Amino acid sequence: VSQPAHQTRAANQPHIEDSDGALQLALLPEPFTMHRGGVLERVQVAYETWGKLDAERNNAVLLFTGLSPGAHAGSSDADSTPGWWEYMLGPGKPIDTNRWFVVCVNSLGSCFGSTGPGSIDPRTGKPYNLEFPELAVEDIAKAGRETVRLLGVKRLRAVVGPSLGGMTALAYSVLYGDELDHLITISAACRAHPFAIAMRSLQREVIRADPAWKGGDYAAEAEPTEGMRLARKVGLMSYRSAEEWRHRFGRERIANEYLSGGAFAPEFQVESYLEHNARNFSGRFDANSYLYLSRAMDWFDLADYGGSVEAALARVGARRSLVIGVESDVLFPVDQQREIAEGLRQAGRVVEFASLPSVQGHDAFLIDEERFAPLVRDFLARA
Amino acid sequence: VSQPAHQTRAANQPHIEDSDGALQLALLPEPFTMHRGGVLERVQVAYETWGKLDAERNNAVLLFTGLSPGAHAGSSDADSTPGWWEYMLGPGKPIDTNRWFVVCVNSLGSCFGSTGPGSIDPRTGKPYNLEFPELAVEDIAKAGRETVRLLGVKRLRAVVGPSLGGMTALAYSVLYGDELDHLITISAACRAHPFAIAMRSLQREVIRADPAWKGGDYAAEAEPTEGMRLARKVGLMSYRSAEEWRHRFGRERIANEYLSGGAFAPEFQVESYLEHNARNFSGRFDANSYLYLSRAMDWFDLADYGGSVEAALARVGARRSLVIGVESDVLFPVDQQREIAEGLRQAGRVVEFASLPSVQGHDAFLIDEERFAPLVRDFLARA
Repeated sequence: VSQPAHQTRAANQPHIEDSDGALQLALLPEPFTMHRGGVLERVQVAYETWGKLDAERNNAVLLFTGLSPGAHAGSSDADSTPGWWEYMLGPGKPIDTNRWFVVCVNSLGSCFGSTGPGSIDPRTGKPYNLEFPELAVEDIAKAGRETVRLLGVKRLRAVVGPSLGGMTALAYSVLYGDELDHLITISAACRAHPFAIAMRSLQREVIRADPAWKGGDYAAEAEPTEGMRLARKVGLMSYRSAEEWRHRFGRERIANEYLSGGAFAPEFQVESYLEHNARNFSGRFDANSYLYLSRAMDWFDLADYGGSVEAALARVGARRSLVIGVESDVLFPVDQQREIAEGLRQAGRVVEFASLPSVQGHDAFLIDEERFAPLVRDFLARA
Repeated sequence: VSQPAHQTRAANQPHIEDSDGALQLALLPEPFTMHRGGVLERVQVAYETWGKLDAERNNAVLLFTGLSPGAHAGSSDADSTPGWWEYMLGPGKPIDTNRWFVVCVNSLGSCFGSTGPGSIDPRTGKPYNLEFPELAVEDIAKAGRETVRLLGVKRLRAVVGPSLGGMTALAYSVLYGDELDHLITISAACRAHPFAIAMRSLQREVIRADPAWKGGDYAAEAEPTEGMRLARKVGLMSYRSAEEWRHRFGRERIANEYLSGGAFAPEFQVESYLEHNARNFSGRFDANSYLYLSRAMDWFDLADYGGSVEAALARVGARRSLVIGVESDVLFPVDQQREIAEGLRQAGRVVEFASLPSVQGHDAFLIDEERFAPLVRDFLARA
């Protein structure tokens, strides 16, 4: 049996790790200079790919994710579990992997294989925790770009991203404006508005208020799960829409056999839904990663490039863009999508803009296949 | 100097305490049976009055409050500090105290003079805390009614309430349908929708997660102020509107000299605003009172009276009603106001309905004098 490839070359050499599973690892060129200062000695990006890179290396699509998912956007032979965007990605699907070589990266700073606050700091042999340098959306974009370059891709046919992924796609398009042809942003923003900042600030505060957070120095086996659980509930208040919950839960009560009892215990179905979702999340996502990614979203401001959002959007190199927003989204409201579309249009780019009446709020792109799939399919069919 | 009146009569006799200040106390008839079961031995209601009861005792207006204010709705000779509805209430103001005898009660269960979880349980000599019986909106309505009866008022010219006060006014109008002529509800609801329930449930959970809450058995000098501070921030996310914050705060940063420093400390003005408001609140409001009042709002369901909201509204005795909603209110959305107005209209009542474009969300009635004052003035001028 031959040695795994990464043992046959210097560990500090940029390379792709061999993998039997779907999740693969890219060791990026060193050092990795961070947007807001500081340097990471060793940066690893976890990613998955679908489809095949063609001989001209001209069919690659890069997908950035929202705050919480990993790189497993869709199922594959190597990992048949459904991905977070299962309906969107695969053979014959809107992002058709028979045609496109799709790369989805786990964001730098996240906790699903990419380097983040929970990674070992090579200088100390211990987790970075809050010694991790300040993370910006630009760093996530750069890590994605370095990853596809390691895969031999110098130019992307499309960069795609919803939510934080949309912010990252915008950052990518401005920073590397001549390296992409098409851009798809969904429920994104050129910069967060104060309600979104407040929502995230409150989530971060709830995490930090958990004594188990210990100023970021918690052990892996003693994570601040209570703080994460409550923070997730705060977040959920802005991910869906009040209207969706009216239809879905109304004033339905929890069935007697599921009542936990105790003073002020949940009684309504909507409380049970929040609890279920929050429990699933709190054991799965690293608290410090959450803090770093969440703050990066507040800081991001496309107007840093040229002094205004309009000036920044004029630097986007993509010839054609698809910009999608959702009318019930309170976190990345639809007028922020219109701002992107209009800015690109004013800069002479071809833009398709859709304002969708989906009831699922910010999360609609995860659920409303009926509305999202045809838009993306149609746009990419002409790419 | 004569003895204070309450020392010259049996303490268990229903009566009004003499008072030099604006805040007065009513000792209600005993025992006070609670809507969801249980009995309070001794119930005290704190209230303020403005204007004079006329000889026919036919000019009384009862005002119920939202979740957090006390009975000090407006300034007076006895207390010149501005009240929580200062623009609305006073001589020559929309609720004109030259004409009306106005009574504002601190809700039963609250902590500004009325009996609540923090009051001494006469059976034990200690605070009730969670031994306080379950509180319903109907109990608040009943305590208000008993208070005005002690003042010699058997019929109200108007019952007025915003937010929880509007729910209470609705409860009053159904329970004592033949004891009022006019009804004014503002940003109220016949029953909470699931987003509002979730928002309040989360606030209650954040309070209960504070170790200082101690299952409700905290001492007065060791209140769960951290939990209350965070709960207030959660609440504030639903009291205003994202649009207001965009205009008010944008992405303005906190001035350098006010930065507190430390990892993940506030940087944006909107964070500073939340912090300031939450700190003011957390030292001022009793945690258990908050839990009881908050839960009462979730439980309240006007459809309990007759099987449907429509059937219940048909029991409202008021001849004329004014129903006001705010288009940017996410907590008591304007379609819930429309439901009240249409229900009353279908039952043959005279209804004036206004859907206001105020930007301040649920809190608009506290701020948007320009829109609210003329509506209330005009309605009461014809009462």
